[in-house]
Amino acid sequence: MLKFPDRIKKLRELLDKNGYNSILISNDYNRRYLSGFTGSAGFLLITNNKSLLFTDFRYTEQASLQATGFEVIRIQNPTNWLSENIKTLDISSIAFESDDLTVNSLEKIKQEIKQSKLKISLESTVGLISNIREIKSNNELTILKKTIEISDQAFEAVSENIRPGISEQNIAWEFEKKVRELGGEAISFDTIVASGPNAARPHHKASENLIKKGETIVFDCGARYKGYCSDLTRTIILGTPDNFTRKIYEIVLAAQETAIALIESGMTGNDCDAISRSIINKAGYEENFGHSLGHGVGLEVHELPFLGNKSQNIIEDEMVFTIEPGIYIEGWGGVRIEDIVVMKNGKPKILSNATKIRY
Amino acid sequence: MLKFPDRIKKLRELLDKNGYNSILISNDYNRRYLSGFTGSAGFLLITNNKSLLFTDFRYTEQASLQATGFEVIRIQNPTNWLSENIKTLDISSIAFESDDLTVNSLEKIKQEIKQSKLKISLESTVGLISNIREIKSNNELTILKKTIEISDQAFEAVSENIRPGISEQNIAWEFEKKVRELGGEAISFDTIVASGPNAARPHHKASENLIKKGETIVFDCGARYKGYCSDLTRTIILGTPDNFTRKIYEIVLAAQETAIALIESGMTGNDCDAISRSIINKAGYEENFGHSLGHGVGLEVHELPFLGNKSQNIIEDEMVFTIEPGIYIEGWGGVRIEDIVVMKNGKPKILSNATKIRY
Repeated sequence: MLKFPDRIKKLRELLDKNGYNSILISNDYNRRYLSGFTGSAGFLLITNNKSLLFTDFRYTEQASLQATGFEVIRIQNPTNWLSENIKTLDISSIAFESDDLTVNSLEKIKQEIKQSKLKISLESTVGLISNIREIKSNNELTILKKTIEISDQAFEAVSENIRPGISEQNIAWEFEKKVRELGGEAISFDTIVASGPNAARPHHKASENLIKKGETIVFDCGARYKGYCSDLTRTIILGTPDNFTRKIYEIVLAAQETAIALIESGMTGNDCDAISRSIINKAGYEENFGHSLGHGVGLEVHELPFLGNKSQNIIEDEMVFTIEPGIYIEGWGGVRIEDIVVMKNGKPKILSNATKIRY
Repeated sequence: MLKFPDRIKKLRELLDKNGYNSILISNDYNRRYLSGFTGSAGFLLITNNKSLLFTDFRYTEQASLQATGFEVIRIQNPTNWLSENIKTLDISSIAFESDDLTVNSLEKIKQEIKQSKLKISLESTVGLISNIREIKSNNELTILKKTIEISDQAFEAVSENIRPGISEQNIAWEFEKKVRELGGEAISFDTIVASGPNAARPHHKASENLIKKGETIVFDCGARYKGYCSDLTRTIILGTPDNFTRKIYEIVLAAQETAIALIESGMTGNDCDAISRSIINKAGYEENFGHSLGHGVGLEVHELPFLGNKSQNIIEDEMVFTIEPGIYIEGWGGVRIEDIVVMKNGKPKILSNATKIRY
C-alpha cells in the first residue's frame, strides 16, 4: 500500500493527460512528497502501475521503511542502474524534471538507454508536481499548523526580550534555539533581523548591528517540522514610534489586512498582489514595495502559488500562502508584516497567531 | 583588483588549455570560491580579460561589495540577460558546468543565444574548478584551522558531559549550540551520534535513542566558518569497554594511524585507501568497512580528492582531506575514527586536535 496513494493517482492522471508513460523524479522535495522517503539522494520512477525508488547503499534500509508501496532498488552500477531495471516495464517514454536534472545526469541517462537498445524517449517537463503540491491535504495542514505554532511561540518568547543593545545576530540565534527546543527540526531559512537602516533591505541577514530604541526591527523567521516550513514577519519598535514610523506601519498593516479581507478563490496571484499594492501606491509609496505580496508555503518555504504582479496562478481552496506587503525606505528602514493563510470556502483563514503589533 | 587573482589566473590557464574562450559558473561553491560573493543566486562569466557577475536585485549591492574586481550586472530580463551582455565581448565559446546547470537552464541559454544571432558555441565541462579547489592557499588553511578548532572545542565540551540516559539527539543539539557559541556559522552537516546497534550504520542520524554504558558511540560532527567546513569523528565508550569492543577499536585506530604515517604525495586515492583497508582485511573485517577512507574538505564537506578504492586522484601538497576508517557490525555497533590532515612536504600533517580515546 502506497503511503500517499492520492498524490500518485493525481500524478498518473497528469502523466496520462500529457501523453507520458512514466516520470523520473529527481527533485528532493518531490521525491519526499510522493514517496515519504526523506533521504537526500535517489530517484523515483512512476509508471502507470509501478512505483520504483532508486537509491544508494546508505539509504536502502531507510527508503524501505519510509516509502511503503514503493519497490526500493539499490543503485549498484551508475552506468546502467536505470536501463537494467526498466527492461521489463512496458514504457516507451520517460518524462524528467528539466528544472532539476543536470545536463550531465541527463546525458548519462541518454547514454545508458542508447547502449541498452531500449526504445524509450526522454521528455522534458517543468512543474508537474509543483502543481499537485499547491493543494494541501488535511494531514499536511495539521503539520503546517504545528510548524506555524512553533515559530509563533518562538517569536513570542524572543521578541518579548528584545532590548536596546542586543545584536540582530543574537536575536536570530535565540529564535533558532527556541525553535529547536519547541521540537522544530530546524529554522526554515536564515532568520532576518533587520533594524534601523538595515530594514530598508528586504533580504538583509541578521548582523552584528545593535538594536536601538525607536527604530523599526523587521523580524522574518520560520521553523521546519516534519519537513514543512513556516514563515512569519513582524515589525517591532522599542519605545514609542514617531509619527512617520507609525504612519508607515499603519499603511503596511492596512495593505496586509485588506488583502486578507478581499482575497477570494478564483483570483490570480496578480489580483491578490494588486489589492495591497494599490493601497501602498495611493499612500505615495509606489517605489517602496519592491517585492511580491506572497508565496505558497509547504515542503519548501517558497513554492506555488506566487502572489506577484505578473502571476497568473489561480488561487484555490486548500492553498496555503503568505501575505506580506512591505515599505522600504533607503537610509531610514522598513516595515513588513506577514501572515500565513489557508484558503477555505473561498476565503483566506489566518494560521499565524503571533502578536502583530509590538510597540 | 580581483579578490582572488590567483584562482582566476589558474582558471584562465585551464580554459586556454581546453580551448575555451570563456566559462559560465553556476555552482554556488565555485561562484563563491572565484569571486568572494556569498549570495545564493547568480552566475559568473569569466573570459580571457573580463570577469562578470550576474545576479538579481536582492544581491547586486552585496555582490559589488564582496566580489571586488568583478563587473556586477543586475539580471533584469530573464530571457536575454546573458546574450545582451556578451554582444561586445569577443568570445566564440562558453563552457558551462554540466554537473550543476539544469537541462532547463541550458535550454533557455541556448534559446537566447540563438535569438540574438550570436555565433557562440556552448561547451559541456565537468569538474574544472573542483580541480583548482583541491589545492588550498595559506589563507584557506588559516580558515580551515579555525573551523577545525571550533568543532574540536565543541566536541570536547560536549563529549565530557555524555552520560547514560542522554539521547543521541540531545548530544547533537548540544554540539550545534556550542559550535554557534564559539563563532561557527553553522554545523557543516547533520551531526551523527550513533550509539549501540545504531553505530552499525555509518550514516545513522542522531535519534531519540538513549546512551548506554559500554556501547560504542560514533560521534561524527563538523562546523562551518567563513564558508569552510570541518569534519571530525570520535568513538566514545562510557565505562570500561569489553575485550571485543577494545579489539575492534584498536584495529580501527591502527588502520587510521598507519594511513596517516604512510600516506605520501604522489599516491593515488586508491593507494591511500588500501593502507587502512589491508589492516582491517587482515584482522578479518573485510566485509565491515563499507565506505571509503576519506575525502577532501573545504567549502564543501565532501570535495576532491577522494580516497577510495577506485580513486585515481593523485595526492599532492596543500591538499586537505579526512582519514576515517571504520568497522561496522550489524546488531552490535561500529567504530570510526576521523582526523583532517593537510599534505605538507609530501606527508600528512594532522589538523584535528580533539581527544582521540575517551574510554
